[in-house]
Amino acid sequence: MTSGLKQQREPHDQTHGYPSLAKPYLVFVGDVTDPLDAKTATGFVHWRPEWCAGQLRLSTDTVDVGLPEMSITQARDCGISTLLVGVSPLGGGFSPRWIAVMVEALNAGMDIVSGLHQRLSDQPEIAAAIAASQRHVHELRHPAGSFPLGTPRRRPGNRCLTVGSDCCVGKMFTALSLDRALTARGVASRFCATGQTGMMIAESGLCIDGIVSDFISGSLEIVAPDAPENSWQIVEGQGSLFHPSFAGLTLGLVHGAQPDAMVFCHIAGEAAIVDFPTVPLPPIEECLRRYVEAARLINPSARFVGVSANTSKLPATDRQRYLRDLEDRLGLPCVDPVATTIAPIVDHMLEGAATAPEPALG
Amino acid sequence: MTSGLKQQREPHDQTHGYPSLAKPYLVFVGDVTDPLDAKTATGFVHWRPEWCAGQLRLSTDTVDVGLPEMSITQARDCGISTLLVGVSPLGGGFSPRWIAVMVEALNAGMDIVSGLHQRLSDQPEIAAAIAASQRHVHELRHPAGSFPLGTPRRRPGNRCLTVGSDCCVGKMFTALSLDRALTARGVASRFCATGQTGMMIAESGLCIDGIVSDFISGSLEIVAPDAPENSWQIVEGQGSLFHPSFAGLTLGLVHGAQPDAMVFCHIAGEAAIVDFPTVPLPPIEECLRRYVEAARLINPSARFVGVSANTSKLPATDRQRYLRDLEDRLGLPCVDPVATTIAPIVDHMLEGAATAPEPALG
Repeated sequence: MTSGLKQQREPHDQTHGYPSLAKPYLVFVGDVTDPLDAKTATGFVHWRPEWCAGQLRLSTDTVDVGLPEMSITQARDCGISTLLVGVSPLGGGFSPRWIAVMVEALNAGMDIVSGLHQRLSDQPEIAAAIAASQRHVHELRHPAGSFPLGTPRRRPGNRCLTVGSDCCVGKMFTALSLDRALTARGVASRFCATGQTGMMIAESGLCIDGIVSDFISGSLEIVAPDAPENSWQIVEGQGSLFHPSFAGLTLGLVHGAQPDAMVFCHIAGEAAIVDFPTVPLPPIEECLRRYVEAARLINPSARFVGVSANTSKLPATDRQRYLRDLEDRLGLPCVDPVATTIAPIVDHMLEGAATAPEPALG
Repeated sequence: MTSGLKQQREPHDQTHGYPSLAKPYLVFVGDVTDPLDAKTATGFVHWRPEWCAGQLRLSTDTVDVGLPEMSITQARDCGISTLLVGVSPLGGGFSPRWIAVMVEALNAGMDIVSGLHQRLSDQPEIAAAIAASQRHVHELRHPAGSFPLGTPRRRPGNRCLTVGSDCCVGKMFTALSLDRALTARGVASRFCATGQTGMMIAESGLCIDGIVSDFISGSLEIVAPDAPENSWQIVEGQGSLFHPSFAGLTLGLVHGAQPDAMVFCHIAGEAAIVDFPTVPLPPIEECLRRYVEAARLINPSARFVGVSANTSKLPATDRQRYLRDLEDRLGLPCVDPVATTIAPIVDHMLEGAATAPEPALG
């Protein structure tokens, strides 16, 4: 928080490029046994299977992301020179058990890409191995360079933001699905990553949660900058306005993304914040109202264009009815992007944009 | 933003202590000509005049904070060994013209305390002078150590948070006034600083805007921790829910502070965000509603206990009427803490607390 701005801007460099990494990668799953702690690995393997050569797990009960098992030595012998850290436990913490693997990878001539909050290079053994091996560790959660302060200036181009009731409800998956569907229809579209997994998939973006809090909204001006009037940028949301730990980050992201369209992501059947079961979720109508109210500070025409629900926790026979009931309640297309298709949301999004002063369809 | 938390906590150290600095200080006002850019200096001089020996200005049109003019040499000859950087321009930026002064101060054996976003030690000349002089530069905007993730756990003790319609509307001044009034009444009270000026005054606290965005709300658990049931912590607010650059930071602070009581700070007559005149302020009733809605995610009994208005822009004859009209509209005590007194807000705050299950008055 600063003051007396008068629309000046702090000088900042624009060199927020993604590192150049040799493909394919060895995916490190560590020793995590909860699939949520391996969601970087599973998300990456789902969207970029062609970039994944193998998985390295420290025990047989570690999450299996479906790749061939591979040691550092085997990976090196196959000519693999990048280790992707696929674990993402709470707060980006770091297990001491992983250090030996990182050191071994560096000594084998591999670069490492990590999305952990804790810097690998803060570990003395890893720092020594970096120095000795002359390899690189790319710490995506520690963006280099400086950032602008956010402003209300409306940037050209259409933006869609995925928002959620909670963490881990499919915001990245939904954004990537929308981007893929738009591209398949010939609409100019770009996925804008705001977290480490999305960055690894897109080879661009910024980890918003690693940015100093004064610059949350401003950093979105780098992630989703000025673009052609009839193009779409699909911005990956983070956190939730209803999550006690992350709501501030979420609000800054909503303001910086200045979305024309939003898609609400939710896990059907969840009634409280998963991390904090004493914090109930508001009804979906209220969630949507709060997001729209927040977004309209910057973009008065912000609106929802659909709901992306993960219905996997419901009995199979109830899923279609859940989505139909939700459509009736909200008057919006409601889909499960895994079980059904994202297409109705894309239709609705483009319809709305087509009636806007600047048509979104070429 | 992270995920799959399960109420675990990232290990973090608790060593967020304020540096030990020799008093009195020489206050550096640089070459800023806008009083808003010198608000660290003016705020510090107002609340800690006994710690201020002189001011160092680079030109005659620099803001005058009312202290004796003093050069580095004069200060050194008087035995002063701390330079307080009293400038705080947009985003904490750094003017190259200041470097020579910093170098001279270090070479004269002085320590420096700075609340700028840009690290002084990133300037090669200053880094060299630090190394040569063995003096210290304390960069308050760059908190050391790691931080917990915020949780909804209610911490013992009463908390009052000052919030605002905009930046620079008196949130720190109001919080310090409340703390002073409570202390004068014999109520156990502590001012909790969340910005650089407040930290310099309190010799404690954290610069919330310098903390990585995942940890905004969690950092308040350090600033305003568990406290005795009948005590008050008066937390300095930052930014505004209605400011395009800082609303995310503000929301995280509201959640982390988990206030029982809030005081709304406003400049009478302002109808838009000063930095962005195209962004109108909602009516005050709506501002209050939005803050209460935000705060109740964590503390369902959060409520407003008053409005602290800066009426200095109104004609003198209109000020009392403005405050009375506002009281009628809101049903809350409305004061100008400079022109009138903060006492009615303190009365209302203690009344409410006294009727709570845990009496706030000893």
